[in-house]
Amino acid sequence: MYQLFIGNKNYSSWSLRPWLLATELEIPFEEQLVPFDEGGSWNKFRKFSPTGLVPCLVDGDTTVWESLAITEYLYESHPRVWPADKQARAWARCAASEMHAGFFALRNQCSMNCGVTVSLHRIDEALQKDLKRIDELWQQGLSRFGGPFLAGQEFTAVDAFFAPVVLRLKGYQLSLGQQAMGYCERILALPGMQSWVEAGINEPWREVTHDEELLAVGDIVEDRRV
Amino acid sequence: MYQLFIGNKNYSSWSLRPWLLATELEIPFEEQLVPFDEGGSWNKFRKFSPTGLVPCLVDGDTTVWESLAITEYLYESHPRVWPADKQARAWARCAASEMHAGFFALRNQCSMNCGVTVSLHRIDEALQKDLKRIDELWQQGLSRFGGPFLAGQEFTAVDAFFAPVVLRLKGYQLSLGQQAMGYCERILALPGMQSWVEAGINEPWREVTHDEELLAVGDIVEDRRV
Ligand SMILES: N[C@@H](CCC(=O)N[C@@H](CS)C(=O)NCC(=O)O)C(=O)O
Ligand SMILES: N[C@@H](CCC(=O)N[C@@H](CS)C(=O)NCC(=O)O)C(=O)O
Repeated sequence: MYQLFIGNKNYSSWSLRPWLLATELEIPFEEQLVPFDEGGSWNKFRKFSPTGLVPCLVDGDTTVWESLAITEYLYESHPRVWPADKQARAWARCAASEMHAGFFALRNQCSMNCGVTVSLHRIDEALQKDLKRIDELWQQGLSRFGGPFLAGQEFTAVDAFFAPVVLRLKGYQLSLGQQAMGYCERILALPGMQSWVEAGINEPWREVTHDEELLAVGDIVEDRRV
Repeated sequence: MYQLFIGNKNYSSWSLRPWLLATELEIPFEEQLVPFDEGGSWNKFRKFSPTGLVPCLVDGDTTVWESLAITEYLYESHPRVWPADKQARAWARCAASEMHAGFFALRNQCSMNCGVTVSLHRIDEALQKDLKRIDELWQQGLSRFGGPFLAGQEFTAVDAFFAPVVLRLKGYQLSLGQQAMGYCERILALPGMQSWVEAGINEPWREVTHDEELLAVGDIVEDRRV
């Protein structure tokens, strides 16, 4: 059985990606949640992950780190990870890679925090650019492949890669075009997504560093954490 | 025939990756070199690349942007892109993904500039950490899969992903352990690598922004550009 090492569900956007992928595709795995340590988790995470980062998948004697590599590793045994159609699959991989190495304004200014709603002080040019590109990309996927998911009828890895973006849009009260907002609703309604957020909200751990990031960019409107 | 859009060979580290991969694996493609514009190339590059970035591969009516997505797209028709062995392939994808989304100190402080040798003013902690991790990763690959390439006997995409790192180590006079330095020699000796660097040095275009990045971090020891 795969072992999937993840960080706190409330904070760890990268962990959510392979977790949601495996959950929605009903790929059995054992969840190993290792909470972040205040002040850096490198030493703790290095025990199982070569980069000291999560997520990390362990399959027998094979260790697979990096969310995209985990995705391709799973794809080799579970073809539903990527769309069956070659064109849709190419597009999905492009969009997931773009997420993996980009959208820094959104990632830095709107760090994931499942239980909290924030009203941003300002939306700067860089953040606007990221939002515009996400809107364009989602519209393109939904139109070209017919929805309801980004690359067609089935939930695939590209949806998992953008799932933390959906949570950020909600958490920071950001809106995109109508098509994109409809897509957000569908992703938020997924059983896997609901169970992740629920678990995040109920986690006992608080990380001052992560929580303070919110106060640096906006005002807290609601904190649903217990 | 594939069309591969790239930027200046002297400066464009991301372009080098799929170019070298296709060249070393003798995958036929048509090179479309579009030089950067001073002050940003977004408008120019957007005509062929949805992110306004290079590299971008066009295959008939399919556009594939993002170096990792291009790699996986090529892999579907050219199995030599990744190692044949499953364990080596998983490792190679992890290492390439780690490069794709990481090593920011090296990427920011030591931007690629094929023809120039620089003596750095200082090697800060972040850069040291990147170098240490690269050394560790390369050693691991070379030892585990037996060399001479990172994931075994054949040149694969993981070598292409680290090729710009090899050029940076050389250009900024940085050294790693013996095993890693031997690997650098082998990569620099590849015909594709030599032809890329040669072409970069002979390019007529100079980009002030890129060139000034060097002066911010060190002193120029040699400029072999024509
Ligand atoms: N490129 C990596 C990114 C992984 C990453 O940055 N993970 C964060 C959590 S979301 C982490 O482990 N941070 C360590 C820490 O905060 O101490 C991937 O795709 O998996
Ligand atoms: N994540 C992208 C990165 C591509 C990228 O950043 N390309 C640079 C050149 S190396 C670019 O096009 N920059 C545009 C500019 O400098 O105007 C990939 O993997 O392909």
